Amino acid sequence: MNVHGKPCRTIWLKKKDPKTVQIIDQRFLPHRFVVEDLRTPEDCAVAIKDMHVRGAPLIGVAAAYGMYLGAMSLSAKLPLKAWLGRMKSLGAYLIKTRPTAINLRIGVERQWNAIRGAATVAEAVRLTREAAGALAEEEVENCRRIGEHGLRLIEEIARRKKGKTVNILTHCNAGWLACVDWGTATAPIYAAFNKKIPVHVWVDETRPRNQGASLTAWELGGHGVPHTVVCDNTGGHLMQHGKVDLAIVGSDRTTASGDVANKIGTYLKALAARDNGIPFYVALPSTTLDWDMEDGVAEIPIEERDPEEVTHIQGLSGGKMTRVLLTPKKSPAANYGFDVTPHRLVTGLITERGVCPASKEGLLAMYPERKTFQP
Amino acid sequence: MNVHGKPCRTIWLKKKDPKTVQIIDQRFLPHRFVVEDLRTPEDCAVAIKDMHVRGAPLIGVAAAYGMYLGAMSLSAKLPLKAWLGRMKSLGAYLIKTRPTAINLRIGVERQWNAIRGAATVAEAVRLTREAAGALAEEEVENCRRIGEHGLRLIEEIARRKKGKTVNILTHCNAGWLACVDWGTATAPIYAAFNKKIPVHVWVDETRPRNQGASLTAWELGGHGVPHTVVCDNTGGHLMQHGKVDLAIVGSDRTTASGDVANKIGTYLKALAARDNGIPFYVALPSTTLDWDMEDGVAEIPIEERDPEEVTHIQGLSGGKMTRVLLTPKKSPAANYGFDVTPHRLVTGLITERGVCPASKEGLLAMYPERKTFQP
Repeated sequence: MNVHGKPCRTIWLKKKDPKTVQIIDQRFLPHRFVVEDLRTPEDCAVAIKDMHVRGAPLIGVAAAYGMYLGAMSLSAKLPLKAWLGRMKSLGAYLIKTRPTAINLRIGVERQWNAIRGAATVAEAVRLTREAAGALAEEEVENCRRIGEHGLRLIEEIARRKKGKTVNILTHCNAGWLACVDWGTATAPIYAAFNKKIPVHVWVDETRPRNQGASLTAWELGGHGVPHTVVCDNTGGHLMQHGKVDLAIVGSDRTTASGDVANKIGTYLKALAARDNGIPFYVALPSTTLDWDMEDGVAEIPIEERDPEEVTHIQGLSGGKMTRVLLTPKKSPAANYGFDVTPHRLVTGLITERGVCPASKEGLLAMYPERKTFQP
Repeated sequence: MNVHGKPCRTIWLKKKDPKTVQIIDQRFLPHRFVVEDLRTPEDCAVAIKDMHVRGAPLIGVAAAYGMYLGAMSLSAKLPLKAWLGRMKSLGAYLIKTRPTAINLRIGVERQWNAIRGAATVAEAVRLTREAAGALAEEEVENCRRIGEHGLRLIEEIARRKKGKTVNILTHCNAGWLACVDWGTATAPIYAAFNKKIPVHVWVDETRPRNQGASLTAWELGGHGVPHTVVCDNTGGHLMQHGKVDLAIVGSDRTTASGDVANKIGTYLKALAARDNGIPFYVALPSTTLDWDMEDGVAEIPIEERDPEEVTHIQGLSGGKMTRVLLTPKKSPAANYGFDVTPHRLVTGLITERGVCPASKEGLLAMYPERKTFQP
């Protein structure tokens, strides 16, 4: 998507120096646009761990590029077997950087499958570069397709509204900053905007880390998409008063029955959408589907994060990034990262293959190859 | 309630100088406890307008004290009729300080009714002091009774839980800081705590002005009530996992049918409570009842406040009160102050007369004198 009028991705190889991987260091958004050079696999691990990059698809691709940087940093004179052993250790190290894990594992496994049959170290190094690039392109293509399928939902509402602006509410950042390009929840929005369908996005600020206010607002603004930031408390009121036509969110994990774990607060918006007859869609690439789980509320483990993310917040004061305390010094705080929206509240899932009901039947019809895995 | 172990109210006459009204300047909480002297009716108007004091019952009492300060500042040599004329103008001026109005009007009208029949200016001045004190005591008594009635609900849950901690969720500050003492939503909590029933309060931080994180957490902590601050996004998850036994909130306006306008986000918590079978109560003195309205969502006007309350936030940094920017500079924000919870989602209303269903029938049974006003 565009930044200052120019197309941009979240991760890429440096043009004049393909031994360097570049990323947007998202810790400084929306106040500063910082590009960081990653030269070693350790640089890459720190970037994932300390959330210079975040978002499931993006950290998977970052891990794949970490393997590429590792491949180049190892001595080309090592025997192939020893070299592969080192790469295997590096993969294990990268997978451990964040607990969410599944996309990190995918990034590392893709590399391993690419290099395990290589004839020489030199060939293997070349293959890691190709595999990282291929995974990035695959994620872009997944998101682009989610955009195409979701676009039809927006087009339908635009037709019904006879060309009046379609108001879409989203929670957290399931945007291109969480992926490589397009995003998941935002992909249909960008597709509609690019097709000149009038859209406007209500951006939930998404406490405590404010990914909506700092990332989604920034990326929508950068691409020129009309939007308004609101506190997380606001969505119900907007829906009661006809100011929301459609809600689209992303997902961190979706069970085989269609229950959706996503950023804390998603469930509250789904309840409000249901209470007001507003369609509530979840956009997700199939990599976030967990076919081994059924009951999301009972089974999906919910990450508890540092309470300081609740008691303190970072912003810009006098041109400087400043962290302020919001609560009484002695008041404890709790910080649950996610909640689970039961599938009964989800109108549909927008996947790279199309839109399906949030149910076991809906998902199996979309991914029939999974039927063989059922007991 | 207690502050640093000593009983405290939000507004009082200075002990050694009863010509001065003192208030807690709430703008500095939770970081600093500042007591402000109000010596003129203009001091009082600024304190209401700029929210040194806030909360419907408290600003009503502050307006009554403003009339008292005005009475003393007028020349005692004025003829009674001219003196009363000046007092009438002062009342109109105080009523205009905030648009919510109804409690300000009550504070001023009480004074007017007290002084209109006075025989001398000196008598009238004395009467304003008495009337302001009487209104303050009445508000304390209203809240104390709400506490007594609400206490029974908490006791019942404590019995059912066989003495295990009762977890109560509240939104915004409907605490003693919004009143003179006790609070509305917090009154049953203080009553239970004082009776040694184990309670724990989930405090919604309540964006954008963070009255939960800065005021409710501070006053609960000051009185020793166990509590945990959470982001507004969190309540649904807590309810799904059995961590909330009861929700109690306040109200800014409640219609004759029991629809409740309260701080933005209240509706979302009511939806989650309903979805999880958790009782959702609203505590309110009868002064916030609007007998002229039925359909709250359609009829109650919702205040839109300055978007800067969303884009910026104040906190403590290096010992200094500091305001930081949270959003991209060019991103617009919207700031709706309240939402309306339809009465179908409200388990009951806790009033100074007792607990009643949130319905026309329930309210009329509690306030039978209002039946004569029905068409």
